[in-house]
Amino acid sequence: MVEHLLIALVVLLVGAKLGGALAERFGQPAVLGELLAGVAIGALPLLGVGQFAFIGTNEVVDALADLGVILLLFEVGLSTRLADLMKVGVSAFLVATVGVVAPMILGYFVGVWLLPGQSSYVHVFLGATLSATSVGITARVLQDMGKVKTSEGQIILGAAVIDDVMGLLVLAVMVGLLGGSTRSTGVTAAIVTAKAVGFIVGALVLGRWLAPHLFRLTARLRGRGVVFTAALVTTFVLALSAHLAGLAPIVGAFAAGLVLEGVPFKELLPEGESLENLLVPLSSLLVPIFFVRMGLRVNLAELAGGSVALAAGLTAAAILGKQACALAVVNRGVDRLAVGLGMIPRGEVGLIFAGMGLDMKLQGVPVLGTGEFAAVVAMVMLTTVVTPPLLRWRLSRVGPISVTAGQPSEG
Amino acid sequence: MVEHLLIALVVLLVGAKLGGALAERFGQPAVLGELLAGVAIGALPLLGVGQFAFIGTNEVVDALADLGVILLLFEVGLSTRLADLMKVGVSAFLVATVGVVAPMILGYFVGVWLLPGQSSYVHVFLGATLSATSVGITARVLQDMGKVKTSEGQIILGAAVIDDVMGLLVLAVMVGLLGGSTRSTGVTAAIVTAKAVGFIVGALVLGRWLAPHLFRLTARLRGRGVVFTAALVTTFVLALSAHLAGLAPIVGAFAAGLVLEGVPFKELLPEGESLENLLVPLSSLLVPIFFVRMGLRVNLAELAGGSVALAAGLTAAAILGKQACALAVVNRGVDRLAVGLGMIPRGEVGLIFAGMGLDMKLQGVPVLGTGEFAAVVAMVMLTTVVTPPLLRWRLSRVGPISVTAGQPSEG
Repeated sequence: MVEHLLIALVVLLVGAKLGGALAERFGQPAVLGELLAGVAIGALPLLGVGQFAFIGTNEVVDALADLGVILLLFEVGLSTRLADLMKVGVSAFLVATVGVVAPMILGYFVGVWLLPGQSSYVHVFLGATLSATSVGITARVLQDMGKVKTSEGQIILGAAVIDDVMGLLVLAVMVGLLGGSTRSTGVTAAIVTAKAVGFIVGALVLGRWLAPHLFRLTARLRGRGVVFTAALVTTFVLALSAHLAGLAPIVGAFAAGLVLEGVPFKELLPEGESLENLLVPLSSLLVPIFFVRMGLRVNLAELAGGSVALAAGLTAAAILGKQACALAVVNRGVDRLAVGLGMIPRGEVGLIFAGMGLDMKLQGVPVLGTGEFAAVVAMVMLTTVVTPPLLRWRLSRVGPISVTAGQPSEG
Repeated sequence: MVEHLLIALVVLLVGAKLGGALAERFGQPAVLGELLAGVAIGALPLLGVGQFAFIGTNEVVDALADLGVILLLFEVGLSTRLADLMKVGVSAFLVATVGVVAPMILGYFVGVWLLPGQSSYVHVFLGATLSATSVGITARVLQDMGKVKTSEGQIILGAAVIDDVMGLLVLAVMVGLLGGSTRSTGVTAAIVTAKAVGFIVGALVLGRWLAPHLFRLTARLRGRGVVFTAALVTTFVLALSAHLAGLAPIVGAFAAGLVLEGVPFKELLPEGESLENLLVPLSSLLVPIFFVRMGLRVNLAELAGGSVALAAGLTAAAILGKQACALAVVNRGVDRLAVGLGMIPRGEVGLIFAGMGLDMKLQGVPVLGTGEFAAVVAMVMLTTVVTPPLLRWRLSRVGPISVTAGQPSEG
């Protein structure tokens, strides 16, 4: 119904942009404001304003949000160069690994401690929600501070990219574990991991080999936006393939970004255009819808109830777990604490985990209840809130000494 | 469900781009190929391929198509300068008026002749589907021939813009007539017309006065894509307002395009960006979905049945009706036949009429049956097909004599 569609779009977009602008006015990332806008819209019925309650359960809104997160991971994949994934030093890899494992272990024990009645799967799942640093938020904070090109910035970004891939694998394993409950967990984990790695490696090897040929062929078709549409179709096909292979669609979307790295878009697109620029209008429309919708799912009443301890425990595990990264830096002259602090922000992947936890069923019961979901969202919000001031404080001490030659410190 | 969403998007986008490219390969507008792709996809179940049958009735696909047509009319509105609507000479206005009235009268009589059992409303509605020249197709043909700046091109474009507005008013009247059946048709027509003109004039006067202030205020919000989002929100709000005022949402979308003419986007957007360019990725994704979905609704079996006579009659009325425009040209030295031929193509508005005819009910029965709908679609296809060769033949005779100084004929 066109009326509901238009009302939902206006409410979601106005909420996202007002929330985002307000958050940035207070030095916080826009994504925080978008989440809070969603929470606020979701709380309107509590204030007697029920006209917008349909937005939280609208099928079209869900579809637009799904497209938003697929586009986001596609963009992250596009801005990830496979060569960088290979090249980044031992430090970035160790920082990423420690940064994934340590919070998962701490998160698991928080689960054992605060949710003793739940199964081990739920405890591991809670730990998994803490695993991945948000590339977007990390990069945004570094960029706003003019610290992208410091050694600390480079290690954080390299590690964040790798731990994003690890996070996707962890996600694939968690989803797969739930599917194949007849086999032993070890075998299932191995199969799921093999399937996940196999899909990604297969998509990358086959895809990166095929894509340039397919796109050259496609570019010979005339018509408005043919190459851009082909890039979107590639994303949707890989997202669908991932889904059909039992993986999350976003794994495929991320792989699509990596696959399209080898396509010479500069030659194929009209002069002055780039795939990244063409994606901006789409993603600036759809990505905030995903985050506002996420906020909409937070139940304020439950957040205020028994889950406060869980939120605090998860947040502590999330922050302390990433500080172990400081120990994994092998380069000299690097401010280890700055690296640990830079790894704190959680975002997209954590929220995606939490969202899937709501939807996935373990013996008929959702893996995450709305209380646990709200605790994860609170963890994401808190890690997002604490990082900019902490990182600004620490990086302002780093000074120009580790800035690459000739690059002035803009912070 | 994300699986259906992704399958639908892949099928619709691949169909649209293959169809569009094939049509352009044969010198036809892309929109023709998109419609035919939709017809082909819709015919797949007849060939025993039933996997994609869900696309024709999918709520999310409908929403994306609705957004597509709203964006299209917004773009048309954006590329329409109110000053041009005012400035274009007596010729353009007379051509537009004759070009709307003559086909409607002929179409009405085709209805009386071939559908004697139907009500007068259906006959008038059939005539109305013939009223509006498609600005997009007309402009595209002129541009591809390098004839935009000829006197003939200017008159055609000016008239096409005016008759687009007239078509929207006719649409508003047709929708309104159906709603207020308790009053006499004359009073209803007057009220609906007043409401339509009132909405448009009100939106334009209030909107054009408010918009620059609102957008300057909005631009002070920080964040990615704030100004672009504000433009979309304006479109959705005006589309929603039009809908709530009993008008079609696209009337509001078109008005939004005219309203935003006064906003200094060059100052508000980052350098090198324009609202038109930002819209391209969105519209190149969503607009074809609208046309493919339109094609999907064509029932080939019924097209082959009793409606062939109606399709032929409507097509003849559509082509002959617009030739009356030749008589309305008052400027000297203009090739009158070229103007008449240039007014032939029907597109968006005709299809939108036909689509609404399927949805609107007259005493519980749809205004247009699937047979009549298919005849209108056939009319759109035929007028779209015949125009490029006819116009190319005639305009190639016009030569450089009426081309403005220094502008080479590229055709």
